[in-house]
Amino acid sequence: MNFCSNCGASVTRLVPPGDNLPRWVCSQCNTIHYENPKMIVGCVAEWDSRILLCKRAIEPRYGLWTVPAGFLENGETTADGALRETLEEANARVEIAGLFSLYNLPHISQVYLLFRGRLVDPDVSAGAETLEARLFEETDIPWSELAFATVRNTLQHYFSDRRTGHFGFHIGTIEPMARRQG
Amino acid sequence: MNFCSNCGASVTRLVPPGDNLPRWVCSQCNTIHYENPKMIVGCVAEWDSRILLCKRAIEPRYGLWTVPAGFLENGETTADGALRETLEEANARVEIAGLFSLYNLPHISQVYLLFRGRLVDPDVSAGAETLEARLFEETDIPWSELAFATVRNTLQHYFSDRRTGHFGFHIGTIEPMARRQG
Repeated sequence: MNFCSNCGASVTRLVPPGDNLPRWVCSQCNTIHYENPKMIVGCVAEWDSRILLCKRAIEPRYGLWTVPAGFLENGETTADGALRETLEEANARVEIAGLFSLYNLPHISQVYLLFRGRLVDPDVSAGAETLEARLFEETDIPWSELAFATVRNTLQHYFSDRRTGHFGFHIGTIEPMARRQG
Repeated sequence: MNFCSNCGASVTRLVPPGDNLPRWVCSQCNTIHYENPKMIVGCVAEWDSRILLCKRAIEPRYGLWTVPAGFLENGETTADGALRETLEEANARVEIAGLFSLYNLPHISQVYLLFRGRLVDPDVSAGAETLEARLFEETDIPWSELAFATVRNTLQHYFSDRRTGHFGFHIGTIEPMARRQG
């Protein structure tokens, strides 16, 4: 951030009075430009025991597989965002069954919220940001070609819970690769 | 938003190529300025059956009661944010016991995430944004002086669950007053 989005003057990094964190503050109109984490919402969508995955047509992780998910938009509920992403990425319609996992990614200031969903029909196809949309049995999940740790962990919990007949709610934190290995 | 925070030129509201929503886009450097919902994180903190509430010293809802809660900051996990807000607003230390409620407020593009917590000790006092911090028995909760519907709904679920001996996870959407009455 270099300029104030309100008045166009330059901004300075400082701790505003009464605050305890540095913010971008306008040198002219004194607007404080707060920056906050973003939510990624998505869906583990099932049809007759098979799970919907999308092969990414965009960076990051081009060519790897994910559940349909993307940034929550202003004016949406978290479930509405998950429905929209599933429609956009896989042309798939789902009924949301409940929130299934929350993952914190503090190093990139993101929070993932992934729902469980039931596909309304098995007609899925690639949206604009997807190379291929496909339904996978558990035994066919491309574990080594999953795009994100959030997706891998969520799918592991999903199949584990499904075997018990009871879906829980899972919360966790994903550390960057270096810290996980360290 | 009037100016590009990257280069200082003016911004235009338009649907970027490949997108389907209007965004603020820089007329000069073409930066797309996405705007996304924010998370409010907080905690229903209990000590020996009593619940911690804070009387707000700031707008909105100055003088009304809330559980400690505030905007999640970049670099934080949701639980870390709840701990920080509880410390800042009530000088109170808690152990987080689990996520208890999620409320969507799509009309103001916010998502509340409220945890359950156990106070480490009963020493609570007003922080800078709080007029008074106090522990309330269920029978003494100032229901008509609560600051937010998210807090009222969460406390109702909390006491209801506590009577059953099992705390669930509650998800809901708060509509603006006019729509709720309509």
